[in-house]
Amino acid sequence: MTRALHIDAPVGLPVVDMTREFDAPPAAVYRAHRDPELVARWLGPHGFEMVIEVYDVRTGGRYRYSHRDPEGNVYRFNGVFHTAREDELIIQTFEYEAVPDVVAVETLRFEALDGGRTKLHTHSVHTDVATRDAMIDSGMEQGVRESYERLDGLLAG
Amino acid sequence: MTRALHIDAPVGLPVVDMTREFDAPPAAVYRAHRDPELVARWLGPHGFEMVIEVYDVRTGGRYRYSHRDPEGNVYRFNGVFHTAREDELIIQTFEYEAVPDVVAVETLRFEALDGGRTKLHTHSVHTDVATRDAMIDSGMEQGVRESYERLDGLLAG
Repeated sequence: MTRALHIDAPVGLPVVDMTREFDAPPAAVYRAHRDPELVARWLGPHGFEMVIEVYDVRTGGRYRYSHRDPEGNVYRFNGVFHTAREDELIIQTFEYEAVPDVVAVETLRFEALDGGRTKLHTHSVHTDVATRDAMIDSGMEQGVRESYERLDGLLAG
Repeated sequence: MTRALHIDAPVGLPVVDMTREFDAPPAAVYRAHRDPELVARWLGPHGFEMVIEVYDVRTGGRYRYSHRDPEGNVYRFNGVFHTAREDELIIQTFEYEAVPDVVAVETLRFEALDGGRTKLHTHSVHTDVATRDAMIDSGMEQGVRESYERLDGLLAG
């Protein structure tokens, strides 16, 4: 079963909040965010190929990766990890390289639910409202929804 | 002469914008932000002692320092550098350790002005409006004003 993705993007604030439940415990969901070979199997919309250059989930670690869409267009992203606390919390910056030097900060909280499940809370703060709105208009919701569907499959596998 | 500090903190947005001119070129102002032994001489309100544990201004580098006020109270801060581009740009995260896991992102742009001067633009985005407001209410403006007065002195020295 695919669980609901809840997105809250208040008008006039540069913020996006999302929650999503997973049928696996925090340790498994965290591991799928930490291990590059797992991340590459679920992060991104359907049909995109992810190539990871570096993905070093620890305080002061960096990540950089590209997504290639079915038409061959390539989108590159990078950031640094401010906090990485096993099975609990990741705080990272986020930059889409086509819009250089415009950096968001994302906080991911892995909440343990009864029955060995997890609620993932993501709080993203963009540099301004226009940047937040552009991110939403770029198809963010579909990309996140499809990513989490693939993550469901990975966690069930 | 002490130049004016301009602060813009729009009601209802988690953002603070500041500008300040310095009578020194970008390379000197950048160096005063990059070299820990220089940073320790100006960052913080008058009468505070700064102790730097780490201050590694490069992409993926970390900083952590404490400020001790005249009464002996200690305030600790840390973050990571997302971007450090010599004489131009620093993008860093910011965490006040008394409020853990609440992380802002700060963008510092060093703009060259005529006459070998610099305009420093600082754009800070906090995790929410309440956190931004608490930062302002904590005496942020006075702390920044006094820091930059000390930086004027360092640059003139």
